[in-house]
Amino acid sequence: VAGRRLIALLTDFGTRDIYVGVMKGVIATIAPEALLVDLTHEIAPGNIAGGAFCLGSAVAYLPTDTIYLAVVDPGVGTDRRAVALATGRGLFVGPDNGLCAPLVTAVVHTAVELRERRFWRTAEPSATFHGRDLFAPVAAHLASGVPLAALGPAFDPATLVPLTAPGYTLTPTGIDGSIRAIDRFGNLVTTIPAAAVAGRPWRLRVGGQLIPAGRTYGDRPPGEAVTLIGSHGFVELSINGGDAAAHFRLAQGDTVTLLWVGEPSGELFALPPGWV
Amino acid sequence: VAGRRLIALLTDFGTRDIYVGVMKGVIATIAPEALLVDLTHEIAPGNIAGGAFCLGSAVAYLPTDTIYLAVVDPGVGTDRRAVALATGRGLFVGPDNGLCAPLVTAVVHTAVELRERRFWRTAEPSATFHGRDLFAPVAAHLASGVPLAALGPAFDPATLVPLTAPGYTLTPTGIDGSIRAIDRFGNLVTTIPAAAVAGRPWRLRVGGQLIPAGRTYGDRPPGEAVTLIGSHGFVELSINGGDAAAHFRLAQGDTVTLLWVGEPSGELFALPPGWV
Amino acid sequence: VAGRRLIALLTDFGTRDIYVGVMKGVIATIAPEALLVDLTHEIAPGNIAGGAFCLGSAVAYLPTDTIYLAVVDPGVGTDRRAVALATGRGLFVGPDNGLCAPLVTAVVHTAVELRERRFWRTAEPSATFHGRDLFAPVAAHLASGVPLAALGPAFDPATLVPLTAPGYTLTPTGIDGSIRAIDRFGNLVTTIPAAAVAGRPWRLRVGGQLIPAGRTYGDRPPGEAVTLIGSHGFVELSINGGDAAAHFRLAQGDTVTLLWVGEPSGELFALPPGWV
Repeated sequence: VAGRRLIALLTDFGTRDIYVGVMKGVIATIAPEALLVDLTHEIAPGNIAGGAFCLGSAVAYLPTDTIYLAVVDPGVGTDRRAVALATGRGLFVGPDNGLCAPLVTAVVHTAVELRERRFWRTAEPSATFHGRDLFAPVAAHLASGVPLAALGPAFDPATLVPLTAPGYTLTPTGIDGSIRAIDRFGNLVTTIPAAAVAGRPWRLRVGGQLIPAGRTYGDRPPGEAVTLIGSHGFVELSINGGDAAAHFRLAQGDTVTLLWVGEPSGELFALPPGWV
Repeated sequence: VAGRRLIALLTDFGTRDIYVGVMKGVIATIAPEALLVDLTHEIAPGNIAGGAFCLGSAVAYLPTDTIYLAVVDPGVGTDRRAVALATGRGLFVGPDNGLCAPLVTAVVHTAVELRERRFWRTAEPSATFHGRDLFAPVAAHLASGVPLAALGPAFDPATLVPLTAPGYTLTPTGIDGSIRAIDRFGNLVTTIPAAAVAGRPWRLRVGGQLIPAGRTYGDRPPGEAVTLIGSHGFVELSINGGDAAAHFRLAQGDTVTLLWVGEPSGELFALPPGWV
Repeated sequence: VAGRRLIALLTDFGTRDIYVGVMKGVIATIAPEALLVDLTHEIAPGNIAGGAFCLGSAVAYLPTDTIYLAVVDPGVGTDRRAVALATGRGLFVGPDNGLCAPLVTAVVHTAVELRERRFWRTAEPSATFHGRDLFAPVAAHLASGVPLAALGPAFDPATLVPLTAPGYTLTPTGIDGSIRAIDRFGNLVTTIPAAAVAGRPWRLRVGGQLIPAGRTYGDRPPGEAVTLIGSHGFVELSINGGDAAAHFRLAQGDTVTLLWVGEPSGELFALPPGWV
């Protein structure tokens, strides 16, 4: 049923103010049957790369006709484009500032600029809250069956603003990366994807320490560090039952080095018995 | 369909405890088809004026048959009235302590005191959690079609407890107001409504500084302050990409002065070129 | 209708990351008609007893066919059992680590170990996120009508891991207990249940102070402490309009002593007039 379309919300609005609630009220007015799921509203204010990372971590697990209503929009009210995209991984409604990058990795069927004001909440939107006045009503109209092409003129998806996000570098002895995100548990998610590790045994060098790899937190005694392929699909650094971010005093952007097992680590370090 | 009625929740319960979840469970037991939208649960404990401000910021954007289940209730268990109101802007269910003020600005069709215990969860409610035992079940019964008049005896809406909230004062040179709310981004929402400014050019005097007005955050360079009509419909003080509350060290209740352009500011201050 | 089954979520995942949103996306893919209610996601990381307390505080207020999707799972990826239970108070889906204790106090009709991988999201789940790959899809399949017995082999509920949680001790003069939880308002919930007090007049000794009992916060002047039977069904220590946790500098696990009125308190202390 068109009316049960899932709208997944991702913003930097927090939940202290009524910004998110008001967006949902606007949606409910237009598409009361839509199913709303909050991905997160705790993206750091204006952190487009952080929002894109969260969006990218979620898309594989939601229906492919999901409408992603994503608003991390430090340029609200300026001349940045407001867009809607139909892609092989779902629809995107939000600002054209790189946030949509994880959806654009799939085929983009259609990209339109949101110009048709009859699908906005008001023809004269607030200059500071397009989430409420423009993106939420457009997402709701999509959920209730309005075709994407009706929302505004099509444009070439190749002109979408690219995402500036940290990556990783292959080296002779491993992979250089950095801390991409820190989760609620203090797990440190790096920029090194599982595909780059490809099942090869590794260790992680952090400060003066070599951290052994495992499959799960419990592969190490409580309080001990472990590196593993986390649920986001990236190499993570964790402490079993502890807070790795606090323990290692690492922050977003700090560098980490992955070393293949057998490669010189540049440090004298004795691994515990039984660990690669 | 009566069953798809929107119930909008606003409380000071936070989301750490199960208070809100339990209210929703009670609603789901009575009215499983109701549509629940969280406005916010992060009102500061017992801050009735803060709750009313958030409620007032939301009502324009939700359906006019929305049921507002609003519980900021420092007097729970005392003899303050528990009420339900039908107004031109929606229905209100909650304590009679001023919280309902934004809805009462429209015509109040009916006001009843919640006395009919058959619409409560239990005839012997907890003395400290009327949200769960009284307000949530009443809102759910309203959503499922129970008429307002069945909930208890009608009373004169003129006897509702008025809201004590800070306002603003017109002066010969501008408007004196104060900080009403601070949002997640550190934007400072004042008590001065857009209607009082009425499109006339202004500046804001804060401490020893004169802040130029703009239309949007991006009208100023990153890191620079701007005052604008915010999405709540009040004069705001912001920093483009920054946290105005932290920068100006302002808190709720602190005073601000709006000056019409051309009026003496009482300070020597050179505006940047191109700014009014 | 089977499709409107309520799934109540309780986790220690927080709301900063997309963990909860992704679980809901997985559920929506399988059972789009299910009704989702968040109990809380702010259980302290790995705090099984804290999660069980919240679960136990909620079950009485939700429909008896509710599916509790409860994930506080410090042993994720180890050989701890993943289970589903049908009980007289609702269904439980989650790890076998004591979290389910409040449901097990009612009759357990069936207990199964989750072994049938066709009801998982993938036959090769992430080692660190069974919430997404195992528990959420199983809960969704239950909501959409899959019988519990199809999910895996039955086992004896007597072999469920018991909960280790602090209790209380009857003494000649009262009850010794401790602080079990602190809520958003700073109310201190003790381990002493209403049933143990059984309507007998009491006072609470905290540090060098004797706190009088009341029925509601407003029974004491603003800023004054009161002990009462709170909405969780346990003895609480509160300050009318204040934060008892901050005032008394008490933390989870700290001991408190309940004294029957008329029993020697061991302290010289004059109660205010009119108080027992």
